Amino acid sequence: MPEKHTFQSIILSLQEFWAEKGCLIWQPYYTQVGAGTMNPATFLRVLGPEPWNVGYVEPSVRPDDGRYGENPNRFQQHYQFQVILKPDPGNPVELYLDSLEAIGIDPRAHDIRLVEDNWEQPAISAWGLGWEIWLDGQEITQFTYFQQVGGQSLDPVPVEITYGLDRILIALNNAAAIWDEPWNETVKYGEVRRQDEFEQSKYYFEVANADRLRQMFELYKAEADACLAEGLVVPAHDYVLKCSHAFNILDTRGAIGVTERQAFFGQMRDLARKVALAYLAQRKELEFPLLKTVEGKHKTVNREEYPVDTDKAVPFLLEIGVEELPASDLDSAVEQLKINVPKLLDGLHLVHSTVSIHGTPRRLTVYMESIDPHQPDREELVKGPPAESAFGPEGVPTQAAIGFARGKGVDVKALEVRMLDGGKYVVAVVKQAGRPTPEVLFESLPGLVAGIKFDKSMRWNESGVTFSRPLRWLVALLGESVIPFEYAGLTAGRTSHGLRPYGSPEIIIPTAAKYFAMIKKNGIVLDVEQRKTLIEAGVRKLAASVKGEAIMPPELLDEVANLVEMPTPLLGSFSPEYLELPKDVLISVMKKHQRYFPIQKDGKLLANFVVVRNGNNRQLELVREGNEHVVRARFADADFFVREDLKHTLEDFHPRLSTLIFQKKLGSMLDKSERIEKLTDVLISMLGLEADEAIFARRAAHLAKADLVTKMVVEMTSLQGVMGREYALRSGENPAVAEAIGEQYLPVPKTKPGLAVALADRLDSLTGLFAVGLAPTSTKDPFGLRRAAIGVVHPLIDHNLGFDLRAVLKSAATLEPVPVSEEIQTQMLEFLAGRLRVVLLDMGYKYDVVDAILAVQAGDPAGAAKAVRELAAWVERKDWNMLLQGYARCVRITRDQKTRFTVKPDVFSEDAEKSLFSALLNAEKLPRTSGNIDDFLNAFRPMLPAVNEFFDKVLVMTEDKSVQENRLGLLQRITALADGTADLSKLEGF
Amino acid sequence: MPEKHTFQSIILSLQEFWAEKGCLIWQPYYTQVGAGTMNPATFLRVLGPEPWNVGYVEPSVRPDDGRYGENPNRFQQHYQFQVILKPDPGNPVELYLDSLEAIGIDPRAHDIRLVEDNWEQPAISAWGLGWEIWLDGQEITQFTYFQQVGGQSLDPVPVEITYGLDRILIALNNAAAIWDEPWNETVKYGEVRRQDEFEQSKYYFEVANADRLRQMFELYKAEADACLAEGLVVPAHDYVLKCSHAFNILDTRGAIGVTERQAFFGQMRDLARKVALAYLAQRKELEFPLLKTVEGKHKTVNREEYPVDTDKAVPFLLEIGVEELPASDLDSAVEQLKINVPKLLDGLHLVHSTVSIHGTPRRLTVYMESIDPHQPDREELVKGPPAESAFGPEGVPTQAAIGFARGKGVDVKALEVRMLDGGKYVVAVVKQAGRPTPEVLFESLPGLVAGIKFDKSMRWNESGVTFSRPLRWLVALLGESVIPFEYAGLTAGRTSHGLRPYGSPEIIIPTAAKYFAMIKKNGIVLDVEQRKTLIEAGVRKLAASVKGEAIMPPELLDEVANLVEMPTPLLGSFSPEYLELPKDVLISVMKKHQRYFPIQKDGKLLANFVVVRNGNNRQLELVREGNEHVVRARFADADFFVREDLKHTLEDFHPRLSTLIFQKKLGSMLDKSERIEKLTDVLISMLGLEADEAIFARRAAHLAKADLVTKMVVEMTSLQGVMGREYALRSGENPAVAEAIGEQYLPVPKTKPGLAVALADRLDSLTGLFAVGLAPTSTKDPFGLRRAAIGVVHPLIDHNLGFDLRAVLKSAATLEPVPVSEEIQTQMLEFLAGRLRVVLLDMGYKYDVVDAILAVQAGDPAGAAKAVRELAAWVERKDWNMLLQGYARCVRITRDQKTRFTVKPDVFSEDAEKSLFSALLNAEKLPRTSGNIDDFLNAFRPMLPAVNEFFDKVLVMTEDKSVQENRLGLLQRITALADGTADLSKLEGF
Repeated sequence: MPEKHTFQSIILSLQEFWAEKGCLIWQPYYTQVGAGTMNPATFLRVLGPEPWNVGYVEPSVRPDDGRYGENPNRFQQHYQFQVILKPDPGNPVELYLDSLEAIGIDPRAHDIRLVEDNWEQPAISAWGLGWEIWLDGQEITQFTYFQQVGGQSLDPVPVEITYGLDRILIALNNAAAIWDEPWNETVKYGEVRRQDEFEQSKYYFEVANADRLRQMFELYKAEADACLAEGLVVPAHDYVLKCSHAFNILDTRGAIGVTERQAFFGQMRDLARKVALAYLAQRKELEFPLLKTVEGKHKTVNREEYPVDTDKAVPFLLEIGVEELPASDLDSAVEQLKINVPKLLDGLHLVHSTVSIHGTPRRLTVYMESIDPHQPDREELVKGPPAESAFGPEGVPTQAAIGFARGKGVDVKALEVRMLDGGKYVVAVVKQAGRPTPEVLFESLPGLVAGIKFDKSMRWNESGVTFSRPLRWLVALLGESVIPFEYAGLTAGRTSHGLRPYGSPEIIIPTAAKYFAMIKKNGIVLDVEQRKTLIEAGVRKLAASVKGEAIMPPELLDEVANLVEMPTPLLGSFSPEYLELPKDVLISVMKKHQRYFPIQKDGKLLANFVVVRNGNNRQLELVREGNEHVVRARFADADFFVREDLKHTLEDFHPRLSTLIFQKKLGSMLDKSERIEKLTDVLISMLGLEADEAIFARRAAHLAKADLVTKMVVEMTSLQGVMGREYALRSGENPAVAEAIGEQYLPVPKTKPGLAVALADRLDSLTGLFAVGLAPTSTKDPFGLRRAAIGVVHPLIDHNLGFDLRAVLKSAATLEPVPVSEEIQTQMLEFLAGRLRVVLLDMGYKYDVVDAILAVQAGDPAGAAKAVRELAAWVERKDWNMLLQGYARCVRITRDQKTRFTVKPDVFSEDAEKSLFSALLNAEKLPRTSGNIDDFLNAFRPMLPAVNEFFDKVLVMTEDKSVQENRLGLLQRITALADGTADLSKLEGF
Repeated sequence: MPEKHTFQSIILSLQEFWAEKGCLIWQPYYTQVGAGTMNPATFLRVLGPEPWNVGYVEPSVRPDDGRYGENPNRFQQHYQFQVILKPDPGNPVELYLDSLEAIGIDPRAHDIRLVEDNWEQPAISAWGLGWEIWLDGQEITQFTYFQQVGGQSLDPVPVEITYGLDRILIALNNAAAIWDEPWNETVKYGEVRRQDEFEQSKYYFEVANADRLRQMFELYKAEADACLAEGLVVPAHDYVLKCSHAFNILDTRGAIGVTERQAFFGQMRDLARKVALAYLAQRKELEFPLLKTVEGKHKTVNREEYPVDTDKAVPFLLEIGVEELPASDLDSAVEQLKINVPKLLDGLHLVHSTVSIHGTPRRLTVYMESIDPHQPDREELVKGPPAESAFGPEGVPTQAAIGFARGKGVDVKALEVRMLDGGKYVVAVVKQAGRPTPEVLFESLPGLVAGIKFDKSMRWNESGVTFSRPLRWLVALLGESVIPFEYAGLTAGRTSHGLRPYGSPEIIIPTAAKYFAMIKKNGIVLDVEQRKTLIEAGVRKLAASVKGEAIMPPELLDEVANLVEMPTPLLGSFSPEYLELPKDVLISVMKKHQRYFPIQKDGKLLANFVVVRNGNNRQLELVREGNEHVVRARFADADFFVREDLKHTLEDFHPRLSTLIFQKKLGSMLDKSERIEKLTDVLISMLGLEADEAIFARRAAHLAKADLVTKMVVEMTSLQGVMGREYALRSGENPAVAEAIGEQYLPVPKTKPGLAVALADRLDSLTGLFAVGLAPTSTKDPFGLRRAAIGVVHPLIDHNLGFDLRAVLKSAATLEPVPVSEEIQTQMLEFLAGRLRVVLLDMGYKYDVVDAILAVQAGDPAGAAKAVRELAAWVERKDWNMLLQGYARCVRITRDQKTRFTVKPDVFSEDAEKSLFSALLNAEKLPRTSGNIDDFLNAFRPMLPAVNEFFDKVLVMTEDKSVQENRLGLLQRITALADGTADLSKLEGF
């Protein structure tokens, strides 16, 4: 190991590095900010067309990150080094990696990872796309292409690089915690910062006075408004920042409810937008003075000669080089290319071998063994005018025909007459000579790339093109020739790039056929399946080495495989003392935050994990230590929260729910909690819980939401329920109660008490939010009510519990603090039916079967599901069509009748009708369960011969009204056999 | 000229320089501060015993320095680079000068001056001594040895170096203004800062809402208190800083009155003190962790061999090398040495030639042509026991004699008997051999240096020695031998140092006799008179070169001569357009701020000045340009204020006085102004103003305080009245009105309207502030009420205007918004009498005369003064004693009588009493002016024979009561002749 780096040497090196790259070196801001982004050198200067390159330290203050100086790498104040490059210089990631080398980080000795990060800052109405940059699992930098700030779209797009200086120091010195690391040669970081961390944490969490901070917020806001009224941008911005800090303290103090938070955010967002607009107006008025410094440099492209036409089929390669794609975007892009490439080639009539598509985070590859050098020559029939108007009496071509022929470039004599679209038309046979493939591809490839779409995409340069992340190179080779198409400011060539940890070296591809070999030689595993296999095998082996087995959920494996180009799994460990933390917390941290594979043995976690490095196994030890440090810090954090929480019982937290607003009109979470208790009571009897289950359900309902105000859940919302269960157990609650609390967030709770609480919660949310007009729309569902509805119907099906949705909604309605009209209850039933339909379709049933049942049985999901299953079986029977037709005949002839006719047996005259009536009487005598399809159809099926004979021999609509009505009445009684089961008319073939 | 320096390169160079010197590089603070001193890296870390070396940039925000981006070098936000060296490394000034070289400032090409600066920051109860450091007349750095911060004495003493980065940029690039100077290679300073300057200035001066800021102040203070209650030091300090910034804004907004300011300061000072104490307690609790880093290095001194004894008289030299002494301290030290050195040498019995003492800012020199190498041998008589107890009956020495002889080291036989102190005693004749001079001086020289005292002195190193500024070397030579005495951590040697601009090169003095030649050779003018002569001649010559004559007040010449070791006057000029500014403003700026000699012709200023450089005439042009830049910036500043002010008439400002609080209970300055108007009305008649004078006085009273809210006066308070007069004239007021406004601040206004206004102002202040309990105490007089009282009595004396203080106070009392009781009015009268006494004593009158008059006539200062003058003359008369005794006899015999007896002429029986009565009747008939001493004594004097005869012949206290009472009545009537003039019993000899 070289000598230790000091904190200040990192800062001085970064200043020097970026100053040399032309950045203006700026200073930290003079008011507390949560991030360098809030410094006007970023917030304001990224707006508008002026170029701006700047670098500065920003001591960033985030009250709720305070840990009393106890956490190794989390503090209420951390130091950022902020860089803005506007416009994007084209190679910002490479510049960034160079800067890491400048401060002593050798990328080959570490694992440097770009991890998707969709940055968003609602308080200033800003967002962008980019990455967290991880060094050995530790986030050391945020790298973002800003798309919008203060509600304003940014053009040009600025690159924001935010270094976490403290974590870089830890990583550089391979330290366990920051406190003993050197600030300079004589003083340690902890010696100048730790006491302050303790004090500020204490202030923010315990001492700050909420009333006074609210008053400050109001005063700041008023001053900001006053400044804006005078067009004073920076003074206004200063006060917005002060608002923001005051808000952050209030939040840390736990003094802000959910919807109140919205109100605060709304005010801050509004101010930020006004500041941004005022700044833009001011710069415009000043005629954007910094525009002067832009030199009118225009890129000159070294374009290769346009490729030579060849005669034989050659391989084709397209490589799209990108900055690190998010895992899901990579999957999506590959899927799209798999569809779009063949479609494109077919549309272009290009004869080609099988298309193979591959992708890594940094490249999307299209390859074919062979593609014909030319399109084939083709004949095409073009429809002209009708034949009768094309030729005169003597077959002389009319003006119409002559014009048509001229337009198509054929001799008028070559026109033919053919039958087309049911008439005679003149047609021209147009011969198209196949064009050279290079030419065709040159024209079409831009469209192919442009055709790849993403859920979230971004701009980055003056081309205005959008993509998931910036495109940085294009390789397009037909055999050995380049197809130099242009897109997004790039020109395709033959230069690819290698692995990030090796400095993305240039790889010159001489010919398409050599591509795979060269990529492999550069250590890149192009095929995702191969990467997965490598990872899986490696992880298993490492887990086995500690006599455990890896927890390897497929979605995690998929994601990890999409994060690396050269996977190298390695084993890390952590202090076993952390195993005392709830297992879910540990797994959650490892999987979700770190993308590590946890390891367990006999269902219990081991103090190990596997991380997959992007790179080879050089200096793995360093990478391991880095990752271990990170996990230690994260666990320490969790430990801090859990220890704090365990100073109280779960019951203790319950009253504090009053501080959380559920919804303005629907009251606090405490109010909601009380409704859940009452509704659980209703459900206990509806669901038929046993006596002990009822006791557990009631207690669980009472405690269900209490964990929402614990520190651990406030920090990691995804642990709601999980922590509730844990804390309930540790508070001495019955295990069944704890289980029920944990289950409330499961899609399908396993126990009856869990089910009761979950349903109560979900039904309350649905009823309340529908009542206050917050039902989902076709595009928006901010409160997740679709999921809640599915969470009502799905468990009922799985538990096969008969239920009356209408009745329970009526009960729920009476509990809400707002009126819930009949009309709204009906809307909710329809909404639930819609979700039930989705669930049943997802189970694989045909839509018509589902619709047939739901038309009748939507109010009881479990019953409906059973009916659907039965009906589906009937539909599969060989005799089904006859059966259906027989029933259908009965229905069709009667369905327009408004009256229900009484059957008078003595009016029957013909045998066929008499025997049908007798068959009906037999059917009606059979025992039936309500809604049961089998019962219904088993009753009906024996009637089928009689039905068929009846229709063959008897004229229903005879002129004698009384006879007619008697026969209709008979058929109506047959039809009614289906009542309460299904509307078979919804079925195909009815 | 080399290429331009950029702002950021200066910062980067300073960071690097100080990092290399072992400083921790710190960051600007996250809340608005007026100076880097407020950053906890200074404010807190300088406290206590721990070492601390730090450097950081501090963007310092001073709202009232805002100039809307119009001033070339004055801004509401400027950038400091702050360095703290604790403990003093011993050569901080040299380190500092090295750092200037590191950023490209060649000290030989410039005029670098250390100008006395007694730094004080009452808001944080801090003070220190040091200098402003001037580069070509521009203050670029504050250099301070902190003595106290937060009310705590500092030990060790930290050195604070505060660079003004913006001004350094200007100076380095020899620029006219900062705006077009480069921040980095592509962006100018003005491009990133100027708009902000405009906006913030506008905010601070025009937009900030005073009510809201007052509320913020209160909230901050409350949070600070809450933090202190929990021992949270930094959070508390943060809020103190916020208080301070809020206060600064209020002040800039002109919303804070004089006494309100005191209250604000008091609160802030109190908080700062508590923060400092809490920090110290905390560090102590932590056991001062940073103490560990101090290495136990102990200086090893290369001490020269103790000097060889010589036989012949040799020259003696003592040079005390100091960091730049303030001008007045230099004078004082020289004066003290002139007295103390001969006294010391005489006390040591050292025979020496004339002592010559010289001084420059960097050295104090003691020199003698010759001093004897030894003290002479001496005999000394030592008194022993009384003779009778020393010898027995036969002349045998007693034990007492034997013991005494042994104690003195003489043979008992050598004892002699002598008459001493009126008795016979045994004496011993003790012979003292003279000790070698080097030995004696070695012992005494420390005391000589220690004996030099200053009004303000400081500590700087662990020796704890105090001096005006740090002692840095000692030269002590006897002939060619060193006398290596030690003091203040230094050991005297033979190494002196040369001129600052030449890097203070070492000068090795081989022998005392060569000192003057070597110092001269090094360009240093040791003799202050010679420096003055050089300066005077140079200044005259330069003034003559522009056909003008220099304004050269002696105190300025004295000061300038004490600022340099090598004076080189040079001529500078400024744009004549500034000559339109009021002359007082221009002169004030040049003399007071810059120590320039202004130049005038026929009483009108020329656009030139003379500055005296410390150094030779190398690159004078650069120095000139620098100084011209400074004066331009200063005049631009004044111009800015005056132009802003002249947008309004003086009358316009009057209503704005409501925004200035005079004192919480006494209302605004507008309220005070209105009281002054009313009281002026009263005074107009009391002082007997003519009709036109009355008109002028009323108008002047109305406008008197209006200039307090003008920008120029807000900036330079010392121009109050001066600007009022100026603005009054420019507003078209009568010149007499303008004059009166100007005169109100003079100790003795010349015109009657001026007098009336001044008295009204002063009497109002006295009455109001006494009434609200803010009368001066023996140690404190924060509102200058002693000066106000003198300002009441002195002008009345000078103008010889009879007056009734009691009556006017009664009038003033009715005008105050608070009750002013009789008791308080009496207190005020006594207070005024006390001041009047001081004034009269200062005029040279004897205290008894003054007291005799004031016992009676204190209520009319002019009358009292006249009476004192007359009485003093009487007291000088030869017959005075008889006169006084005669009168005294009358008084003494009657003063215990409670009753006033009526004289019945027919009861007189003896001639002596009859003739005395007749003399009395004659005296009583003489015309008298009230209070007139001459009238009284001239009346009494003729009675003297009768008085004496009466007492010789008549027994007053005869047994016959009626006779007795008649005689007493007669004497009482004589005594009463003095009524209203004096209480002669106060006189000596009464």
